[in-house]
Amino acid sequence: MTYEAINLKQKLNLFDETWTPKVIAEMNDYQFKIVKIEGDFVWHDHPETDETFFVIEGQVRIDFRDGHVELNEGDIYVVPKGVEHKPYAEKMAKLMLIEPRNVLNTGHEGGERTAVNDVWI
Amino acid sequence: MTYEAINLKQKLNLFDETWTPKVIAEMNDYQFKIVKIEGDFVWHDHPETDETFFVIEGQVRIDFRDGHVELNEGDIYVVPKGVEHKPYAEKMAKLMLIEPRNVLNTGHEGGERTAVNDVWI
Repeated sequence: MTYEAINLKQKLNLFDETWTPKVIAEMNDYQFKIVKIEGDFVWHDHPETDETFFVIEGQVRIDFRDGHVELNEGDIYVVPKGVEHKPYAEKMAKLMLIEPRNVLNTGHEGGERTAVNDVWI
Repeated sequence: MTYEAINLKQKLNLFDETWTPKVIAEMNDYQFKIVKIEGDFVWHDHPETDETFFVIEGQVRIDFRDGHVELNEGDIYVVPKGVEHKPYAEKMAKLMLIEPRNVLNTGHEGGERTAVNDVWI
């Protein structure tokens, strides 16, 4: 039997919209999600979990209340739980996010930027 | 304050040896590890957890008792817990592994291929 791998860029080609994470795989109770981002997001935190950002393509800045981190292609960064952050990309960037199932993109902030959770692609 | 991202390829340039996973980041009780592989590994499984493979460079085949999966650059694959598997790379390949802290590379098989765990780079 031949099993199928999941290719990040092939999955990214399946949608155009930004700020809507799509699940591509699960590991135990964690999910791998891909997302396209452009422009500014809202300040939020995840009080119960760390969140991992991996840059597939482009450049991303994550602002914190006391500084920031710049991420380029092939970079990984783990935002600790409870730390307020605001992702930003001047031009379209493509990311993989890794976090537990049921984590909302806006944390507990809610609002119009909250994406529907657990959407697979 | 400027925080520092972790670049996968930069970390991979810090060592040459194969089959020795190095931790580059943690998310909750999970670890991100990079590893270089070449040739054949031993059959093993992880009875308590899934294990994620992400190919940074090269080509990898993971054999299962009932088949196999071929992984190329940018591919991700989650080996379900309890499933016997044997990674193989004809030429040097570079991977990121994601799994809970304290998981040994050989599962519960032990033997000379077991790498020291929790080595950071």
